[in-house]
Amino acid sequence: MTRSYTIVELAGIVGGKARGDESVRLTGVADLLQAKPDQVSWVSNAKFAGQINQCHAAALLVPSGFGETPMPAIICERIDRSVALLFGAFSRSAGNAIGGVHATAVVHDSAEIAKNASLGAHVVVEANASVGPHSVLHAGVFIGEGSIVGERCEFWPGVVVRDGCLICDRVVLHPNVVIGGDGLGFYFDEGCHQKVPHIGGVRIEDDVEIGACTCIDRAKIGYTRVGRGTKIDNLVHLAHNVQVGEHCMILADVTVGGSTQIGNYAVLGGAVGISDNLSIGDGVRCASGLTIVTKDIPPGATVSGFPAQAHRAELRLQASLRKVPAIAETLKDLVARVKRLEASAHDKS
Amino acid sequence: MTRSYTIVELAGIVGGKARGDESVRLTGVADLLQAKPDQVSWVSNAKFAGQINQCHAAALLVPSGFGETPMPAIICERIDRSVALLFGAFSRSAGNAIGGVHATAVVHDSAEIAKNASLGAHVVVEANASVGPHSVLHAGVFIGEGSIVGERCEFWPGVVVRDGCLICDRVVLHPNVVIGGDGLGFYFDEGCHQKVPHIGGVRIEDDVEIGACTCIDRAKIGYTRVGRGTKIDNLVHLAHNVQVGEHCMILADVTVGGSTQIGNYAVLGGAVGISDNLSIGDGVRCASGLTIVTKDIPPGATVSGFPAQAHRAELRLQASLRKVPAIAETLKDLVARVKRLEASAHDKS
Amino acid sequence: MTRSYTIVELAGIVGGKARGDESVRLTGVADLLQAKPDQVSWVSNAKFAGQINQCHAAALLVPSGFGETPMPAIICERIDRSVALLFGAFSRSAGNAIGGVHATAVVHDSAEIAKNASLGAHVVVEANASVGPHSVLHAGVFIGEGSIVGERCEFWPGVVVRDGCLICDRVVLHPNVVIGGDGLGFYFDEGCHQKVPHIGGVRIEDDVEIGACTCIDRAKIGYTRVGRGTKIDNLVHLAHNVQVGEHCMILADVTVGGSTQIGNYAVLGGAVGISDNLSIGDGVRCASGLTIVTKDIPPGATVSGFPAQAHRAELRLQASLRKVPAIAETLKDLVARVKRLEASAHDKS
Repeated sequence: MTRSYTIVELAGIVGGKARGDESVRLTGVADLLQAKPDQVSWVSNAKFAGQINQCHAAALLVPSGFGETPMPAIICERIDRSVALLFGAFSRSAGNAIGGVHATAVVHDSAEIAKNASLGAHVVVEANASVGPHSVLHAGVFIGEGSIVGERCEFWPGVVVRDGCLICDRVVLHPNVVIGGDGLGFYFDEGCHQKVPHIGGVRIEDDVEIGACTCIDRAKIGYTRVGRGTKIDNLVHLAHNVQVGEHCMILADVTVGGSTQIGNYAVLGGAVGISDNLSIGDGVRCASGLTIVTKDIPPGATVSGFPAQAHRAELRLQASLRKVPAIAETLKDLVARVKRLEASAHDKS
Repeated sequence: MTRSYTIVELAGIVGGKARGDESVRLTGVADLLQAKPDQVSWVSNAKFAGQINQCHAAALLVPSGFGETPMPAIICERIDRSVALLFGAFSRSAGNAIGGVHATAVVHDSAEIAKNASLGAHVVVEANASVGPHSVLHAGVFIGEGSIVGERCEFWPGVVVRDGCLICDRVVLHPNVVIGGDGLGFYFDEGCHQKVPHIGGVRIEDDVEIGACTCIDRAKIGYTRVGRGTKIDNLVHLAHNVQVGEHCMILADVTVGGSTQIGNYAVLGGAVGISDNLSIGDGVRCASGLTIVTKDIPPGATVSGFPAQAHRAELRLQASLRKVPAIAETLKDLVARVKRLEASAHDKS
Repeated sequence: MTRSYTIVELAGIVGGKARGDESVRLTGVADLLQAKPDQVSWVSNAKFAGQINQCHAAALLVPSGFGETPMPAIICERIDRSVALLFGAFSRSAGNAIGGVHATAVVHDSAEIAKNASLGAHVVVEANASVGPHSVLHAGVFIGEGSIVGERCEFWPGVVVRDGCLICDRVVLHPNVVIGGDGLGFYFDEGCHQKVPHIGGVRIEDDVEIGACTCIDRAKIGYTRVGRGTKIDNLVHLAHNVQVGEHCMILADVTVGGSTQIGNYAVLGGAVGISDNLSIGDGVRCASGLTIVTKDIPPGATVSGFPAQAHRAELRLQASLRKVPAIAETLKDLVARVKRLEASAHDKS
């Protein structure tokens, strides 16, 4: 099970250049101070240079220009990329794929499962649904009626994709993600909230990854959409008919209200809230923390605060608010001084 | 599978009045600008009147008083209600009900399943639990020991109802909802948090609907309650012994602390937080955004902010805070002017 | 099924001292005003003394020094502890354990299941995983490849423990908890977010309890850790490589960013957010509400606000902010008075 590489092999994998003793074999990867003498480690930047003398690793990945190392090194132009490739080199093989359909999976006769798809124990695929080649549905995944799952997807246990949804290729859904629950759509009549049927679906495009327990509601009509390459963290809520563009990054605990449109390459920081029916432009960045967006945001803006405004203006505002106790003091003093001036002026007149 | 209606049939279904060519047949519904020539669409208000010339729909639902339309129309007194009924007319039949108990479901001998209830693949119903007539438990739903599920409920995959809970009639639970997990109840002793056993349950009343991944904890003793007709969004947390009244609306990401009581017809906006042991009156509205309720709220109040106060007062406060940078400037200027006045007064004396 | 105790037996169980008629038998426990004549109830403090005349309970647990009661009583030194033990005395027996492995569970040949562990219906345990003695995995729990579950754990339905995680002894995981999903780790290259493989795991130490739908991500490398005795509420997000110390208390909806370290005995209030790569000292308390921690916090501090600061300073700041409307008024008045003084000074010169 343990993989091992020569330093030259590993340099090839991570896109770097080996330096030093080429006979070194590497059997694992670990943090700088935890690495054992047969393992490889890495240093992301010069800040950690002081620690490398305490490092027992057999070899180090370092950024180009890092300087001397007491052990063999792999010099990397793009250290972030190389470290990711390094982790990949030592990760276990993809997906615990069982190959084929587990005996306990329940697949409707009308569903189409590609020959080399893997369906784990207790997976359920309902009528007219399909699962594409090389996709892996781990134990207990549910695919509802008529939903389509593309190629090379990986859905972890507990994922629920309800009926009428479209999941494109290479989509990763982490455990207990919910795609296609009904949105909160009601109208008020006769003293009660009356349901608006949700007859739309959800479309998740290529290369999207979605974190655990995130919930993406189906559209009232048409599609709720998450664009190609977008990555979403845990416990995020996207309401009905939300449209997220391509290559966005949405951090944990974000909430987006119904029918809001988000452009490409947007970044929504942790716990950001966005109201419904808004338009958030391409490349918008919403700062983590207490950012609540209540108005449209033009492309390229960085915003924060409640209601969200330009981040710099918000920082100025926050800084000025911190001065309010001092302002109150100064004002109190000033009132007394003005009173004295008035009294003195009155005496003289 | 495709349903179709004449315009007169559809007018009957949505409670409106047909106008124009009665031979038109409608085979689907779509947004105004997406609708094809055999589909019906709708216009909610006069704001969209300008777009109807670009609409290819065979017919339009419009509010009464909307005016002329280039295609046949259905005139609706209550357009929100009619659109909901329109969606219902084109929705697939309810619940993918399989009818009966799937062969892979595990039902304890002592559990009672009504004859026309539907239990999907891998459903588990434990000892002494019961499921009422016409209720649909989709694949993988779990009903714990002694829990009772009423009539015409629909629970989506991944729903967990733990032991000793009562779910009344026509309750909809979206995927991965958790009913009856233990609350966070501990006392501190000998350097450790010691568990308080939670021997109560949860009672969900008629016509409640609960969004994906929402968690409603069981009571320490007695019941955590969600009253009749209340609708709850995704990722909401109701702690142990919370009491929610009837016909409330609770938006995504709301958190309510233990034993807090919420009256009827309350509306809690997105991400609102409410402390424990509070009393929130009938008809209270808590604004979405940064609203944290830390005190009892009287009936009918609209509140916002942290700590939450009357919404109007909060709006005034927020507006005044935005002026603090200007206040600081004015104050600085004033200090200089007073200093000059003092110097001048001193010179003269 | 109904248990009953004499008052003397119950006094022994709850660690108190019986007073009054020793022939009383107690068959249940209920709130003060709900208790029936064969049930026991409790009063936590003198505040509720006025209600005990309306109480029909056969006996009451009271704190020492509480005074007279119209019915027999059990005098308790530590009333919180005794009430917890009282609830325990009337709780149903632990865990609905089925004993053994349910016929529908899918356990890999290479997995090790202790003889007296209980695996419910549709449980899945993958290759090389293990489950220790007396542990109960309720229906539908998933244990991934190579993960280790210790002794006397209880995992409720829908729990997902992915591959390569370590769960120690007496750990309770409530429904739909996710342990070991990948963190949000990407680097940007060629216009796309590229995945950083997460080759680490999660370590949950002894006596930890974790609420429903909480998500704890696996480490990029090494372990995400939750220390011994820590209790976590529902819908919490701990990102990759977070390190939580021992005996902490983390309330609902908390979000902790990647690689942040939290000391022992910390308390994180509801919905608190903590940025990544921070160090939060032992015994730190973060107030519920709008607390966002953006800097390291020294041991023992109590903080609140955004950015979080010492709680007292934050309270002063909040109080001063509430005065801003009045400050604006005073300032406006003062500007007018200074203008008059200046005019008058000008006239005289």
